[in-house]
Amino acid sequence: MEFHIDKTDANARACTIKTAHSTIKTPVFMPVGTAGSVKSLDAYDMMEILKADIILGNTYHLYLRPNDKVIKNLGGLHGFTKYNGSFLTDSGGFQAFSLSDISKADENGVKFKSHIDGSMHYFTPQKTLDIEYNLNSDIMMVLDDLAELPSTKERVNLSVNRTIKWAKESIEYHMRAKTKTAHQNIFAIIQGGTDREFRKKCALELCQMPFDGFAIGGLSVGEENTLMYDTVEFTTAFMPQNKPRYLMGVGTPEDLVENVERGVDMFDCVMPTRNARNGTLFTSFGKINIKGAGFINDNEPIDKECGCYTCKRYSRAYLNHLYRARELAFFRLASLHNLHYYLTLARQMRSAILAGEFAKFKAEFYAKRVCK
Amino acid sequence: MEFHIDKTDANARACTIKTAHSTIKTPVFMPVGTAGSVKSLDAYDMMEILKADIILGNTYHLYLRPNDKVIKNLGGLHGFTKYNGSFLTDSGGFQAFSLSDISKADENGVKFKSHIDGSMHYFTPQKTLDIEYNLNSDIMMVLDDLAELPSTKERVNLSVNRTIKWAKESIEYHMRAKTKTAHQNIFAIIQGGTDREFRKKCALELCQMPFDGFAIGGLSVGEENTLMYDTVEFTTAFMPQNKPRYLMGVGTPEDLVENVERGVDMFDCVMPTRNARNGTLFTSFGKINIKGAGFINDNEPIDKECGCYTCKRYSRAYLNHLYRARELAFFRLASLHNLHYYLTLARQMRSAILAGEFAKFKAEFYAKRVCK
Repeated sequence: MEFHIDKTDANARACTIKTAHSTIKTPVFMPVGTAGSVKSLDAYDMMEILKADIILGNTYHLYLRPNDKVIKNLGGLHGFTKYNGSFLTDSGGFQAFSLSDISKADENGVKFKSHIDGSMHYFTPQKTLDIEYNLNSDIMMVLDDLAELPSTKERVNLSVNRTIKWAKESIEYHMRAKTKTAHQNIFAIIQGGTDREFRKKCALELCQMPFDGFAIGGLSVGEENTLMYDTVEFTTAFMPQNKPRYLMGVGTPEDLVENVERGVDMFDCVMPTRNARNGTLFTSFGKINIKGAGFINDNEPIDKECGCYTCKRYSRAYLNHLYRARELAFFRLASLHNLHYYLTLARQMRSAILAGEFAKFKAEFYAKRVCK
Repeated sequence: MEFHIDKTDANARACTIKTAHSTIKTPVFMPVGTAGSVKSLDAYDMMEILKADIILGNTYHLYLRPNDKVIKNLGGLHGFTKYNGSFLTDSGGFQAFSLSDISKADENGVKFKSHIDGSMHYFTPQKTLDIEYNLNSDIMMVLDDLAELPSTKERVNLSVNRTIKWAKESIEYHMRAKTKTAHQNIFAIIQGGTDREFRKKCALELCQMPFDGFAIGGLSVGEENTLMYDTVEFTTAFMPQNKPRYLMGVGTPEDLVENVERGVDMFDCVMPTRNARNGTLFTSFGKINIKGAGFINDNEPIDKECGCYTCKRYSRAYLNHLYRARELAFFRLASLHNLHYYLTLARQMRSAILAGEFAKFKAEFYAKRVCK
C-alpha cells in the first residue's frame, strides 16, 4: 500500500492511499457491502454512478455464506462481485459478538453460533486472516476483542490485552504469509472503550507493530457524541502520521466532520443505506423523512443542491409515492442519494483541507443545517 | 395513433404504432408498472437499459394512491414517473374485482372497497376515463365487466352485455371529450369467457365502434392453455386488421409465441417481474430457479446467449448468493434479465415475421427449450 499525505489543515488530513485495485483520496467514506453487495445496489452502481473507490465486506457474513472458499474459487471478492475498486474486510469479531445468539471469547479467539443455520464456529486471529486471504480483500482488519459500553474496568482491560495479543499474532502470521499475499494490507484496531489510559496503552502497543494502517474500534456503540469525539482526539495523538487512520462504524454527517477535524482519514457506516430504507434522506440542510404527507405534491428534488442520480431525475412526490407503495425501486433511489451525500461530503472536506479552509467549511456545514 | 402493418406471415403480424410519446414495433411485450414503477426498476432502467417503448400503469392503484389529480398536477404519468415512452393504463375493473374485499358491479359500474384504507369507491365508464385523462396515458382501456372462469352462461352473458354497454358509453364520452384529449387513444376489451358465441357477439359489437384498438380480456385466469389459444384464434378472426390487437395479462414465453402466431400484437404480464422476485429466470433453454444449490459455484451467466445487463456482468453463483442472502440488489438484476428476455423474444418474433420465417422461429424456439 502506498500512503501519502497531500495536505494537512490543523489536525485534518487529505491523503492518498494506493492499493492493488484503486487510488483512494481521503477523507473517504466507505459504503458497507456486508454480504458482498451494498444493500439495494450493484457493483456498477458503485463504480459508474457513485464512483466509490473502496467499499466494505463483512468477513463474518461472507465466511458463513457463501463461504470464503467458494469466493476464492470464483476469483475472490472482486471476481465474485465484479466490483473493481478496493475492498476492506472487517474481522468478524464485532458480528460474532452482536449477531450471534451464543458468542464466547477466550484467550485464543471467539466461538460463535451462526445466525443463519445455528452451526458453531471459532475465529482465531490466524483463521480470520486465512478467510481474508481467500476473500482477497485489499485491506484486512485483524480480529479484535470488543467490550460493550459501558463496561467495567476489568472487562475493558481484558479487551485491550486480548486485542494486543491477537494483533501481535496477526502481524506475525501475516509477515510469514506475506510472500503470497503481498498485495493485501493489514490494519490493527485500537480498543479501550472511552477510558484514556486503556486507549493510550492499546494505541502505543499496536502502533509499534508494522501494520499498514490503524483503526479506532469500539466507538459509536451508544456513548455520547462528545465522549466519542474526545476519545478520538485523545487516541489519534498516539497514532503515527504516516499511516491511514480509520474510525470504524461512524457515523452521522456531523460525526464525519468532527472526526476529520480530529485527524481521521477513513469512515464506514450502515447509516446512509439503512436510513435510506427507512425513508430518511440526508441533505445539505439536514435530514428529511420522505414518507411525510407534506411531500405528496412536492415536485422539487430531495435537495436542489444535490447532483445525484436520484435528484437529477425524480421529485420528492414520486419518491414519497414509491415509499408509500412499498415499491422496491425506492430503496435503490434513496440509497443512491444517501451514499452520494456521504461520498460528496467526504470529497468536499478534502477540497476544504487542500484549500486550507476546513474551519470555514465546518462553520458553513453547521450553518446550513436547519432540519434536525 | 398511427397504425401500420409492416408485414404479415400467415396470421402473425409485424406492425408499427405511433403515439404522442413513442413508436412501438410489434409484436410487443409491455412491462407492468402497476403503481407507476415497474417493480424494482426505475424509469431510466426502462428507457436506457431495457429500451422499452411502452409500459403499463394500473388505473385502480394510481387512483387510490397517490390519486390521479395529484399525478395530473405533477405532469401526468410522464411528468410524475419521468418515463418518456408510452403508457397504457388498464381500466381498474380487473383490480376492483380481484384486489378488493368488497366489490359489486351493477348496470352502471363497479363499487369497490380500497385495499389500502377500506374507503368505498365507484367506477363508471366515464369516471374511469376521467381518471385516465388525468393520468394522461397514451392508451386508455375502457371499463369492462369480468366473469370468473369457469362461470355460468348467465354470468358470461351478463358480462358481455355490460361490457358492450359500458364500451358504448365510453366511446361516446370520449368522442365528446376528444378535443382536449386528442392525443390519448382508447381501446375496448372483448369479453365472453371461453364461449365462442359470446366472444363472437362481443367482438362484432365492439369492433363496430370507432375504438383505436381492441383487446381480448378475461383469459389467462386459470383455463387450459389450449383453450386460451383456441379462444384467441377464434376471436381474432372477428377483429379488424387495421387496428392493434392486445391480449391482456398473457403470459408465458410459450403463450406469447402461440398468440403471435394467432395474430396478437400486444401483450402484458407480471410474470417476468414476479417470477424474478421468486428466483425464477427465463432463458433460451427454458426456466431455471437460481436459488438451487447447483448454482453456488457456477461462474457462468444465467444464459450464455443473453446480452442483458445482468448476464454481461454477473455469474449465477453471485445471483444465487444475492438471492439466498435476501439482498435487494437481486430483485433488480433478476427483473432486468427477465424483462430483457421477454422484450427480446418479442423483437425476435418481429424479425422472424419480417423475414417470413415465423414457423421456423417457432420450431427452433421449442426445440431449444430443454428446461421445463
